[in-house]
Amino acid sequence: MSGAAPNGTAQAVTHAQMAAALRVLAMDAVEQAQSGHPGMPMGMADVATVLFTRFLKYDAAAPDWPDRDRFVLSAGHGSMLLYALLHLSGNPAMTVDELRRFRQLGSLTPGHPEYGHTPGVETTTGPLGQGLATAVGMAIAERMLSARHGPGLVDHRTWVVAGDGCLMEGISHEAISLAGHLRLNKLCVLFDDNGITIDGSTALSCSDDMLRRFEASGWAACRIDGHDPEQIAAALSAAQTGGKPTLIACRTTIGYGAPTKAGTAGVHGAPLGADEIRAARRAFDWPHPPFEIPGAIAAAWQRAGARGAALRERWQQRLEQAPAEQRRAFAEALAGGIAPGVGDAVRTFKRAAREAGKPEATRVSSQKVLDLLGRAQPNLVGGSADLTHSNNTIAAGMRAVAPGDFSGRYLHYGIREHAMAAAMNGIALHGGFIPYGGTFLVFSDYCRPSMRLSALMNQRVIYVMTHDSIGLGEDGPTHQPVEHLASLRVIPNLQVMRPADAVETAECWQLALQSAQTPSVLCLSRQNLPILRTAHDDDNRCARGAYVLREAQGRRDATLLATGSEVALALDAALQLATQGIDAAVVSMPCWERFEQQPADYRKAVLGTAPRFGVEAALRQGWDRWLGDDGGFIGMTGFGASAPAKDLYPHFGLTVERITEIVRTAVQASSPARREEA
Amino acid sequence: MSGAAPNGTAQAVTHAQMAAALRVLAMDAVEQAQSGHPGMPMGMADVATVLFTRFLKYDAAAPDWPDRDRFVLSAGHGSMLLYALLHLSGNPAMTVDELRRFRQLGSLTPGHPEYGHTPGVETTTGPLGQGLATAVGMAIAERMLSARHGPGLVDHRTWVVAGDGCLMEGISHEAISLAGHLRLNKLCVLFDDNGITIDGSTALSCSDDMLRRFEASGWAACRIDGHDPEQIAAALSAAQTGGKPTLIACRTTIGYGAPTKAGTAGVHGAPLGADEIRAARRAFDWPHPPFEIPGAIAAAWQRAGARGAALRERWQQRLEQAPAEQRRAFAEALAGGIAPGVGDAVRTFKRAAREAGKPEATRVSSQKVLDLLGRAQPNLVGGSADLTHSNNTIAAGMRAVAPGDFSGRYLHYGIREHAMAAAMNGIALHGGFIPYGGTFLVFSDYCRPSMRLSALMNQRVIYVMTHDSIGLGEDGPTHQPVEHLASLRVIPNLQVMRPADAVETAECWQLALQSAQTPSVLCLSRQNLPILRTAHDDDNRCARGAYVLREAQGRRDATLLATGSEVALALDAALQLATQGIDAAVVSMPCWERFEQQPADYRKAVLGTAPRFGVEAALRQGWDRWLGDDGGFIGMTGFGASAPAKDLYPHFGLTVERITEIVRTAVQASSPARREEA
Repeated sequence: MSGAAPNGTAQAVTHAQMAAALRVLAMDAVEQAQSGHPGMPMGMADVATVLFTRFLKYDAAAPDWPDRDRFVLSAGHGSMLLYALLHLSGNPAMTVDELRRFRQLGSLTPGHPEYGHTPGVETTTGPLGQGLATAVGMAIAERMLSARHGPGLVDHRTWVVAGDGCLMEGISHEAISLAGHLRLNKLCVLFDDNGITIDGSTALSCSDDMLRRFEASGWAACRIDGHDPEQIAAALSAAQTGGKPTLIACRTTIGYGAPTKAGTAGVHGAPLGADEIRAARRAFDWPHPPFEIPGAIAAAWQRAGARGAALRERWQQRLEQAPAEQRRAFAEALAGGIAPGVGDAVRTFKRAAREAGKPEATRVSSQKVLDLLGRAQPNLVGGSADLTHSNNTIAAGMRAVAPGDFSGRYLHYGIREHAMAAAMNGIALHGGFIPYGGTFLVFSDYCRPSMRLSALMNQRVIYVMTHDSIGLGEDGPTHQPVEHLASLRVIPNLQVMRPADAVETAECWQLALQSAQTPSVLCLSRQNLPILRTAHDDDNRCARGAYVLREAQGRRDATLLATGSEVALALDAALQLATQGIDAAVVSMPCWERFEQQPADYRKAVLGTAPRFGVEAALRQGWDRWLGDDGGFIGMTGFGASAPAKDLYPHFGLTVERITEIVRTAVQASSPARREEA
Repeated sequence: MSGAAPNGTAQAVTHAQMAAALRVLAMDAVEQAQSGHPGMPMGMADVATVLFTRFLKYDAAAPDWPDRDRFVLSAGHGSMLLYALLHLSGNPAMTVDELRRFRQLGSLTPGHPEYGHTPGVETTTGPLGQGLATAVGMAIAERMLSARHGPGLVDHRTWVVAGDGCLMEGISHEAISLAGHLRLNKLCVLFDDNGITIDGSTALSCSDDMLRRFEASGWAACRIDGHDPEQIAAALSAAQTGGKPTLIACRTTIGYGAPTKAGTAGVHGAPLGADEIRAARRAFDWPHPPFEIPGAIAAAWQRAGARGAALRERWQQRLEQAPAEQRRAFAEALAGGIAPGVGDAVRTFKRAAREAGKPEATRVSSQKVLDLLGRAQPNLVGGSADLTHSNNTIAAGMRAVAPGDFSGRYLHYGIREHAMAAAMNGIALHGGFIPYGGTFLVFSDYCRPSMRLSALMNQRVIYVMTHDSIGLGEDGPTHQPVEHLASLRVIPNLQVMRPADAVETAECWQLALQSAQTPSVLCLSRQNLPILRTAHDDDNRCARGAYVLREAQGRRDATLLATGSEVALALDAALQLATQGIDAAVVSMPCWERFEQQPADYRKAVLGTAPRFGVEAALRQGWDRWLGDDGGFIGMTGFGASAPAKDLYPHFGLTVERITEIVRTAVQASSPARREEA
């Protein structure tokens, strides 16, 4: 370790010294950056020291060992605690130079921990409550993977550090309630119970009896002095027994050791300043300069970080001695590849759908695709936020996961969209499964913070979001998405797909599975849609994001661009226009993000040079990108209304007649010759 | 009442008959619509009957009497319960014809209750948990208004019907925790504890001990048989005493009375069918045809609905006898008008800001504006989701509301963005106050479902959202909004404002206050911004949404469009371009929604015919609307990064040099003559 004193022999090192190393690194890095949060790392250093030196199963040299315990810093603003732990315990990437570059461009030590950016960071945290709910997903995945491959290969715990912020956020309730219901007894939450939030004392805003709250949701709960290593160890020990998840409320002093600022909101999110740091160093009996760790303390931390090496080797031996079939299945699940049967299933389904030729809601098509995919891809894990038979998310033969029985493949997430999304992030991050989960598209708003993290973390999480427009009818404007397609399309690295028929639905599912670094949203109709892709075609045409579904007979007079349920309207309008001498192409655009990634030539050929008209039962925002100055848009202009869908489409002007009229008028206006003919 | 039998004399009518009237109307209306949710109204009919006939303070003939009890159907899918109650109790608008037109276009009986559409509906519900959290806001407003105007004018209760769905949603935790903390003892939640969700038994997904959960957050809680009128009455009685909010878990049978479907998920969201309805009629001893209520039962309901008339008259007398000053203050608060001093305050601030001429973060400018507005507009009520001194939301002299003391004007909402937004909806709906509340812009995702309802309900709720771009710096991509401006702009009837300097900040605040039917989001910078509006100007130039901040000297070669912190970059780029012989205008666009509403001539004059370039530290979506085919955009293309803001702007290409280069290249390419000159 750079900066370590030379004398690294195994001399006696106290708990207080090891914890002080964390505290000093945290306060020094924040001071160096002149930005950051020293309070939490200093407050939780004792708990973290006991956990990392005596309990956590990990091998710092191999931070991606599959059977490691997962450590989630839900209170992500305390990132220096995690970076200091990674550094001291011997994570090879986390050098002292990275600590010195805390919060600087390109360092491995960003303001909040970022998964995929820093080895050893299990999940991106910072938006409060997300880590906790993601950890619930990890704990679910652990149990499910263990149920399939046995405790010899999968047997680890999930530890979470959460603060008042995490526990005040609504998502915490969903996560705690779900974890308690499923009896995730290998999950332990270490609550940094410091009585301080940014505004001041927690008494300003919160009077919850936290232990009682967790107990009400089926957790074991206790309170300890978070600065007493023996109390900490006893509580961590106890958390490893019993049949429930555990909350340990650790009474701590935020900014512990800072002589005047400890225990105040002032130490939460600002550098301590030189004077305070000098005094804290004296309090810790720590005469060493910034970023320098005495050899004995460094060595003790390194030994802690290597504690798991032998465990990992034994695990490796068990894996190697396992039957070939088990080894293969385990490796395949973790590798996250797509089974060859998926392509066959999609082609089979498409052929059958074309041959049947029957109108069908894309949510129903999705169900039928899932029946096949579920068989082809054994690590596909479904679920819904209590809309199983509306989202059509349970595939044939999928049994539900139940408390104490994790052999199933379907999760009844309950009416908890936010925790569902975060748990799916956790399942994907843990490895071994590809999660999908359903709700109504309008309720994507309820899980948006977690969807953003799916995208930011490059996780393959598949959101099945049905009832995707006013086409859902009578439930009215509270249930009718109008702005949601646009608001999801704008999230970077999120693939929003809105298939037009059964064939496109199968293709979009295939793309969602193949997109290993990108979450997908499948926007599906409640109402029946005709089969539009009637020609035999084994290619996945949705893969390019948009394609010409109907080409003009001669030179294009207009191009109609549409998605989902409105592609059929656009096609009918093109037929109408043809009778009026206007030659219109129709482009289906199931996935804008994919279309954007196509070569310019392809995009130009699809979009054409004739005036373009967008048709979508949603708001216009974003469409101008495709329409150009001569274009037009037929869609929604505000919220929906409660009525049967058959009445709503005409009410909001989404009819073949109106599309035809708008296109005809515009085309004739832009083409004087044609206008004279007419 | 249309459809009532003629014999309306006061003969003995039983509780069971009155409850049966609700049940039958609900099942018949759903059957007629062939769509809807009969299960909840049938299950909760007994509770609703006892509440409306013996406890609720209301006068059905005057559904907007200010001192009425508020009744919130948080489980909004059970809308027929509310419509049947309004109809039977004598709400003049809710005729039997409206019931017959349940869920039809333009009826007063949409699928979910819609505030502003149906008299007597206190808030729009349907998205689960919203009603409960909105009710918390109503209960806060009641206590605050009572603290100001006395119990003689303000002394009413808030009653909520919530189901398992409401209580599983995360927002319920935030709402319950906040209500318990503030000891909102006039709030009572009637939990429809029927053990059923859409997927089946609640045992599939939830094991919470609900009483214990509420008690942990400082509520009184009990469980009763929700079909026993005496138990119901006793519990409602008890809820009116004591110092805590009350949960009454009402054990009910969903679809009570449906012989084969009661107690199953099958009765939740689908018509019962003719056979089941026939059998249920027999069970209720109800031989009457659909929508026909026997005279005695109708009369008994009418008497219940008129119970409050005398109370209302006495209240009216107290109001008339109150001192003139109190009458005036009460009337002004309820009218929701803007005090004349607001305009003065804004002008004063603008002048001082121009004269000082100092760079300042718009969040800090906002604080200073608030210091003045707080004095000018006494019913302005502030708050923050635990970021008070980051959002700069507490105005000079504002004291905090505390448990048992509602004389303050500032709410420490805690780390509960979602409940904050919903509570602000409730405060606005209740009347008497104009609420604003702060968080970071990126965390608008956490409260988006409630923001959508602010817009759908036309409520003046002001969201103060600071740290509005990568300009926040080191906290990194989890805290840096890039998609949020677009995702908020797409919500209908939501005014998204991003002021460029202190002057625009004051103007935007004025517009937010003046927009009585529209919620606003103020997007404010963490970093300092120079004063750009240096010319003396008492007009509110932001009122038109966009305006020419710098006109070209001659014919425009280009127009730069920018918002917020990037307007200064655009101005500097225009100066650079001028040195290169390119004459660029700069348009500040603080509010797209307002600009869209301007006459076409104004829009054209502002946008000009020269090539247009958007500059915003956010994603492009939506900008193409303003840029046209020749335009360009300088902004973000993905998530941000953790680093000091001064490093991030160059890293992401947001510099004067790059803007200048892009505009120059494009302008010269589009103008061969100029290219030759260059």
